[in-house]
Amino acid sequence: MQNRLVLTATVEREDVLRYTPAGVPVLEMWLRHQSRQTEAGAERDVICEIQSVMVGEACRAWAGRVAGQELTVSGFLCQRSLRNPRLVLHIESAEFVKG
Amino acid sequence: MQNRLVLTATVEREDVLRYTPAGVPVLEMWLRHQSRQTEAGAERDVICEIQSVMVGEACRAWAGRVAGQELTVSGFLCQRSLRNPRLVLHIESAEFVKG
Repeated sequence: MQNRLVLTATVEREDVLRYTPAGVPVLEMWLRHQSRQTEAGAERDVICEIQSVMVGEACRAWAGRVAGQELTVSGFLCQRSLRNPRLVLHIESAEFVKG
Repeated sequence: MQNRLVLTATVEREDVLRYTPAGVPVLEMWLRHQSRQTEAGAERDVICEIQSVMVGEACRAWAGRVAGQELTVSGFLCQRSLRNPRLVLHIESAEFVKG
């Protein structure tokens, strides 16, 4: 059951680091991707914006550092809640894109 | 500028094959994914539904064959239109999951 998104994107907005009631750190951010992709032999502009979240101790190292930065992230897609089908990217790994 | 989603999902709905004004075949479908993923050391249920589209001659081989089937697909995410930010998966390759 594969579910893996790899995306290079700019962090449009970074929220303040928060903690779940169980004390797990959570960092939410909004990513904006823009590129050219080839589809059926024709080039096209591609834009997408996606809400994203890092969960766990690792996200503390990213907090306060990513707003406005370009990252390549990898993770899985999940809908926001049972009632809200909007897709959220759960980031499992990230790296800065060298400018 | 990476943008690559690999997803195993069931085709909840398959539209009738249509053609763009330029004669390019287009097959739209709705995918539903359900799995368990590990996040910050804890297992969690993951559900997501995503509108998807195949564009180009290759999609003719899939038309009428995918409704209710489980596929592993690979492609890129793009928002539906300039005004509609809903994410659509543009499928570039697909294969049936063997039951």
